[in-house]
Amino acid sequence: MAPALKLYGWAMSPFVARAMLCLEESGVEYELVPMSREAGDHRVPDFLSKNPFGQVPVLEDGDLTLFESRAIARHVARKYKPELLSGDGSPAAAAAVDVWMEVEAQQHSGAAGAIVFQCILADLIGAGRDQAAVDENAAKLGKVLDVYEARLSGTRYLAGGAGVSLADLSHFPIMRYFMDTEYAAMVEERPHVKAWWEELKGGPAAIKVAGFMPRDFGLGKKKAEE
Amino acid sequence: MAPALKLYGWAMSPFVARAMLCLEESGVEYELVPMSREAGDHRVPDFLSKNPFGQVPVLEDGDLTLFESRAIARHVARKYKPELLSGDGSPAAAAAVDVWMEVEAQQHSGAAGAIVFQCILADLIGAGRDQAAVDENAAKLGKVLDVYEARLSGTRYLAGGAGVSLADLSHFPIMRYFMDTEYAAMVEERPHVKAWWEELKGGPAAIKVAGFMPRDFGLGKKKAEE
Repeated sequence: MAPALKLYGWAMSPFVARAMLCLEESGVEYELVPMSREAGDHRVPDFLSKNPFGQVPVLEDGDLTLFESRAIARHVARKYKPELLSGDGSPAAAAAVDVWMEVEAQQHSGAAGAIVFQCILADLIGAGRDQAAVDENAAKLGKVLDVYEARLSGTRYLAGGAGVSLADLSHFPIMRYFMDTEYAAMVEERPHVKAWWEELKGGPAAIKVAGFMPRDFGLGKKKAEE
Repeated sequence: MAPALKLYGWAMSPFVARAMLCLEESGVEYELVPMSREAGDHRVPDFLSKNPFGQVPVLEDGDLTLFESRAIARHVARKYKPELLSGDGSPAAAAAVDVWMEVEAQQHSGAAGAIVFQCILADLIGAGRDQAAVDENAAKLGKVLDVYEARLSGTRYLAGGAGVSLADLSHFPIMRYFMDTEYAAMVEERPHVKAWWEELKGGPAAIKVAGFMPRDFGLGKKKAEE
């Protein structure tokens, strides 16, 4: 029987990878329905009827159709592995996951994502690197990682608690690419952030998802074929 | 007895207003602890011990100290008015709130917030308006509001369901300022978005919070005093 869950998108997208990692970590069976960005699969009416914003990923879980990677991750965790969202089940644990998920979304991912874009993608798509944008975002990210270093010197995981949470997992996709830039030293030189990242990337779910995320976003291969 | 909940910040900040609106909507007693941005109250060690990122708002709920406005709103709703987060309690209802909260955060607030900044704040702080940035964000927001118009033609609230949810409420603070710009027509000309906004701003909680949010962010008064 086909799995009840279908994830639509290209897995090298950090947004698709976020949803995939949560599905893998939850141990639920799902089917990854491949799509092509180049072919414009995200702009056809059938896909727009699933997500009117025309973005990946989309998750179908039975009758339910969801979009936005962090919302998908929350749904999967709530239904299939609630401790990712609420730790020991106390209000304090759930609130801590929410706080650090928001920190990821509002403080971390913008700065780290901009560095990934400039240092990896801009070259691949022939846009050229905007070093001023890199510098500005490296300065921002440095301050964010200083807070993480202080936090992680007292707790093994961002939200505290005894196990990994969605707040940690949500960082994985952008971090995976970020660590392939020359700014990876920003993580290496902060021992608690480094230990946290080593654990995060070392889990079987992360290793599996990373296998779908080539450093060159698949663009290098295409370049070679041109 | 003093309320167990304390909200720190300046209420004209859309982020503080988001937390306040959720507190008001939940009917829980709280104390608004005023702070001054000009005096740098958010940079003193006592405040940084509450939020290491030095941003408002912070919520103290008994022993719990929380930051990031959407995380605060989730905690308040979960503890004091769960239907704001989970509607009728079904997995589908909770997932829909998550999806449309993420849409607010990822699609709506960046574009609408940039227009507010350029059309109101840039003038007040003497930076001058960047019309290219306004145009770019108005184009983005137009597409987002087209999706909202289609969505709201089928459901009264963004997440569906019988009542307002955190997904609707979370839009209020930026929308309140946005509707004071000349781009308010983008809402007025979309009948379902307009009806949704009229209902959202017309509630007693929204009216109370809006009272703390002068169009000039309090800067006009200061200008007049100079």
